[in-house]
Amino acid sequence: MRIRSFTMTTKIILDCDPGHDDAVAMLLAHGNPDIELLGITTVGGNQTLAKVTHNARVVATIAGMDTPIYPGVTRPLVRPVEVAEDIHGDTGMEIHNYDLPEPTVGVEDTHAVDFIIDTVMNNEPGTVALVPTGPLTNIALAVRKEPRIAERVKEVVLMGGGYHVGNWTAVAEFNIKIDPEAAHIVFNESWPLTMVGLDLTHQALATPEVEEKLAALGTETGDFVVALFDAFRKNYQDAQGFDNPPVHDPCAVAYLIDPTVFTTRKAPLDVELSGALTTGMTVADFRAPAPEDCTTQVAVDLDFDKFWTMVVDAVKRIG
Amino acid sequence: MRIRSFTMTTKIILDCDPGHDDAVAMLLAHGNPDIELLGITTVGGNQTLAKVTHNARVVATIAGMDTPIYPGVTRPLVRPVEVAEDIHGDTGMEIHNYDLPEPTVGVEDTHAVDFIIDTVMNNEPGTVALVPTGPLTNIALAVRKEPRIAERVKEVVLMGGGYHVGNWTAVAEFNIKIDPEAAHIVFNESWPLTMVGLDLTHQALATPEVEEKLAALGTETGDFVVALFDAFRKNYQDAQGFDNPPVHDPCAVAYLIDPTVFTTRKAPLDVELSGALTTGMTVADFRAPAPEDCTTQVAVDLDFDKFWTMVVDAVKRIG
Amino acid sequence: MRIRSFTMTTKIILDCDPGHDDAVAMLLAHGNPDIELLGITTVGGNQTLAKVTHNARVVATIAGMDTPIYPGVTRPLVRPVEVAEDIHGDTGMEIHNYDLPEPTVGVEDTHAVDFIIDTVMNNEPGTVALVPTGPLTNIALAVRKEPRIAERVKEVVLMGGGYHVGNWTAVAEFNIKIDPEAAHIVFNESWPLTMVGLDLTHQALATPEVEEKLAALGTETGDFVVALFDAFRKNYQDAQGFDNPPVHDPCAVAYLIDPTVFTTRKAPLDVELSGALTTGMTVADFRAPAPEDCTTQVAVDLDFDKFWTMVVDAVKRIG
Amino acid sequence: MRIRSFTMTTKIILDCDPGHDDAVAMLLAHGNPDIELLGITTVGGNQTLAKVTHNARVVATIAGMDTPIYPGVTRPLVRPVEVAEDIHGDTGMEIHNYDLPEPTVGVEDTHAVDFIIDTVMNNEPGTVALVPTGPLTNIALAVRKEPRIAERVKEVVLMGGGYHVGNWTAVAEFNIKIDPEAAHIVFNESWPLTMVGLDLTHQALATPEVEEKLAALGTETGDFVVALFDAFRKNYQDAQGFDNPPVHDPCAVAYLIDPTVFTTRKAPLDVELSGALTTGMTVADFRAPAPEDCTTQVAVDLDFDKFWTMVVDAVKRIG
Repeated sequence: MRIRSFTMTTKIILDCDPGHDDAVAMLLAHGNPDIELLGITTVGGNQTLAKVTHNARVVATIAGMDTPIYPGVTRPLVRPVEVAEDIHGDTGMEIHNYDLPEPTVGVEDTHAVDFIIDTVMNNEPGTVALVPTGPLTNIALAVRKEPRIAERVKEVVLMGGGYHVGNWTAVAEFNIKIDPEAAHIVFNESWPLTMVGLDLTHQALATPEVEEKLAALGTETGDFVVALFDAFRKNYQDAQGFDNPPVHDPCAVAYLIDPTVFTTRKAPLDVELSGALTTGMTVADFRAPAPEDCTTQVAVDLDFDKFWTMVVDAVKRIG
Repeated sequence: MRIRSFTMTTKIILDCDPGHDDAVAMLLAHGNPDIELLGITTVGGNQTLAKVTHNARVVATIAGMDTPIYPGVTRPLVRPVEVAEDIHGDTGMEIHNYDLPEPTVGVEDTHAVDFIIDTVMNNEPGTVALVPTGPLTNIALAVRKEPRIAERVKEVVLMGGGYHVGNWTAVAEFNIKIDPEAAHIVFNESWPLTMVGLDLTHQALATPEVEEKLAALGTETGDFVVALFDAFRKNYQDAQGFDNPPVHDPCAVAYLIDPTVFTTRKAPLDVELSGALTTGMTVADFRAPAPEDCTTQVAVDLDFDKFWTMVVDAVKRIG
Repeated sequence: MRIRSFTMTTKIILDCDPGHDDAVAMLLAHGNPDIELLGITTVGGNQTLAKVTHNARVVATIAGMDTPIYPGVTRPLVRPVEVAEDIHGDTGMEIHNYDLPEPTVGVEDTHAVDFIIDTVMNNEPGTVALVPTGPLTNIALAVRKEPRIAERVKEVVLMGGGYHVGNWTAVAEFNIKIDPEAAHIVFNESWPLTMVGLDLTHQALATPEVEEKLAALGTETGDFVVALFDAFRKNYQDAQGFDNPPVHDPCAVAYLIDPTVFTTRKAPLDVELSGALTTGMTVADFRAPAPEDCTTQVAVDLDFDKFWTMVVDAVKRIG
Repeated sequence: MRIRSFTMTTKIILDCDPGHDDAVAMLLAHGNPDIELLGITTVGGNQTLAKVTHNARVVATIAGMDTPIYPGVTRPLVRPVEVAEDIHGDTGMEIHNYDLPEPTVGVEDTHAVDFIIDTVMNNEPGTVALVPTGPLTNIALAVRKEPRIAERVKEVVLMGGGYHVGNWTAVAEFNIKIDPEAAHIVFNESWPLTMVGLDLTHQALATPEVEEKLAALGTETGDFVVALFDAFRKNYQDAQGFDNPPVHDPCAVAYLIDPTVFTTRKAPLDVELSGALTTGMTVADFRAPAPEDCTTQVAVDLDFDKFWTMVVDAVKRIG
């Protein structure tokens, strides 16, 4: 059992592309007292940069967040833009029969890449965690522009990839497939890296029971999340045949709140860049125990109740 | 329960590269009454064609087999020759402290590729199954030289690949990795194809209990198999950290004796040819139920007892 | 009727996919007294195997050839079938306003691959040259099925590729691009190999002056070639913007009649298999003088007059 | 001291990795009155970033330049670091028997990527040309961080690549091969781009006659350039068999002084990222006239005298 005081909060930068599940990641990071959310950076992914940045502002408005928002890179490093319209709709956070408010919070002038670099360089070494839940373009640019951040971040906990399953192709997940070169950069840096992939997030299903608990809160944010899940359920049923939608992105945040929320396994990880069938695949080598100096691990088994309790508590705390 | 009469035997061609486990596949095919082993074709793989052909003759000599043996192709279609010396030793079927006999059976003049073609074309359509347990070079050449065999074979049941695990690289298995172009040809033909990959064969472990049963037979062939497993155990411990060696190749033969020996799952399959990390990977698409016209399936769960009972019975029958 | 002088002839197998220019290669090989044309093998390429084999029979009929014709492989080793309909039309040798005769010659039962192997193995070593003017599938299968032919053929002189220019893509030529794996096999074997690529054959233009000389023969074969060139001219104008059509394939035959018909340069050669932009490119390394043991060379500068004199003389001799 | 005329100058940013020939590019840009050299940005390439930045400061010290120098990115986007030690020595600008001064000029705090972005965004649209003579990492990061610069730069004139020749591999040139993903980004942006590749720069040979003219100046900078060329000659003889060294990088600057210094040809250009033999190749499509909206061109034929006169004049003007 871990006991955390208020002074033991974890500082994170959430790099995201809201996105229904990114929205929940924002709420979890904002509503949980063990997380100090230093900033939100946005990146073109589920939809265009303009749309996902708008959505981040909408979520912040609903939840009363004053976290600064930094727009980042508009497109993948090398590959053409591709968006996940079948999952996130034309707006990137489409919710039918629900009126999203006009955002009342703005964005910062500083570029996401520079915010990441400055924040990591100006905080104590080993204190800031990066939590990417979209394509890894911002993070890749940051570490190439300022390579010293690789030694200085606490860790990278990212939603993306999968070691035994894909969604955008047979063996590749959307966030990685969209910008595999950025992922290759991030996966091959020296920082500790936890890949929270589809193997894990396909366990984080928003079941009717989960929705009932959120609805029972009777709060604006609770109702918003219920609406998000209803929309997400329909899209995942239509596009990928899921009964209940997998809520990927908050899983990465949850691990920084409590690393017992899922088990992990150390393994060398890399990203395929040139396969005809496998480009964007995150290749884990499980053939032998990982070497001592292996800095990468994958998420394996989710504690479903612990995870959803965290999410519901955070939403409740926001009000 | 299936009941087979003698007239319901399945005709097979075993295309192999003995190889400790290929030897057991030969014995299972020879010793089981439900299989009519039309011929053995050899292919460069675990060791050079000359060595594996010699080994096939040795096994046939030990087991008193009169099955004709047809040497095939010496090397992969496109890639350079690579052999599995760490697993099969310098001879391809190395057994320490055991004197293998000089072979007393010879080989046929007909090329393996032509034997395959002629046999398939001269038997009734849908009656001859191909059982490759080495690189797929012979089979690939045969179907390119005579494309009509694709419609005429009963099915292809091959040992190779894996949908979630590799051995030669993180995600590729030896037989496929050695000649991925040949595998690509075979996996993309129209014949029904069952991939008996590492996911399955890593369940087919030669435990001490299995060895005891074979030793208890008190026969020459039984003792030979025990010696094979002892050698295989040591090599697999040293090279891949296995306690008990996985006996891959007879699993494919076993399926043709009794398809309930393992469960299967239909899925589109293909072979990666150009990945930096994934060349030779057998890519299975499990994202959705396989389409109606899917002709490929993978082996999933082995009935361990049923499998080893088959093997022990076959060895016993040989005497 | 065979036309042949008694001394110093070169024995060749012409492996082709007629094809307007393949037809001229057949006529040059048949009509020139220094060439002993042992057989014609056909391969799917410019059009399907059925169509190009039919065309070979038509050409043989027109020219009164009794050379045996051996149908070969129907499709590329790994890649899907692609044909050059924009250049060769729906029949593969389309000639408007010209009535091609029904063929009166048949084909042999022996497969092209076996004819190549048997011919090379049954003639004296170093006496039979292979002259492929289509995709290299037959040749690749032959050398994989019987690797000893690599040491035994006199040389391979092939039409295909290009070191500075492509036609099917920016840097790849049709014959190589269609079956790059077969080309990779052939280019990497130990035999002496001369690549007669587009750099050379784009100099072999059927100008109006050339056509006039052929027309002036007043023979059936001469008229046939003029009709071929008229059709070829139109197709090359429409598809690739040429004023006069490049008559690729006879250039390879011409070199075996008189190697001074073009200059050559030794250079290491290989075939790209995995490029996004360059698959099927023949990569020549001109950075330094070729190593002493280099067995590959490329055709550089054509002696235009010598070449066309050879062709006209051969057509004239056929009558 | 800046040397500059008052009218018609072209504003450029020189992005380089000195490098013997980068040094000459710096001198040509500095000494020619038609160029306004806004800044020098450095990038890891011929040697590490630290070494090439030091070398840039040394050249600026020798030539009395007060142009600000901005260090940039240390390594390629995706691929591992590789340096051209055989051509540029351990220091990146190795000159035997010549004492390079300690630099008396420093570097700016602003990152090269931000200098490029800020300069392009703060000058009038269409007035600033980018002249990269090293790997394209800085330029690629700049346009991904601030995509609006693509529409705003005057043009990109880069030294790199080659349409018919390579140096680092058979068909790839060092600057492109080292960071092909960066090159892919730069070549596929919408700005006008001139590729000054090896086809051109292998004509820009520093002959003894050229050296004599520089030596005859009797100036410190003249003597420095002579020493550079002597060292370069030896390295190019040893590594690539050249009699006289090709002085690549100033050719790009020369084009911005006077576009008649070489002829150009419009052609679609792209960079191969996944070839086994061709990665880093700049693929030009010359099969047909370039389309109307083609924004890329290649340098073809150098006016040798005009080029060297420019260089000698610039060195003379510096003193």
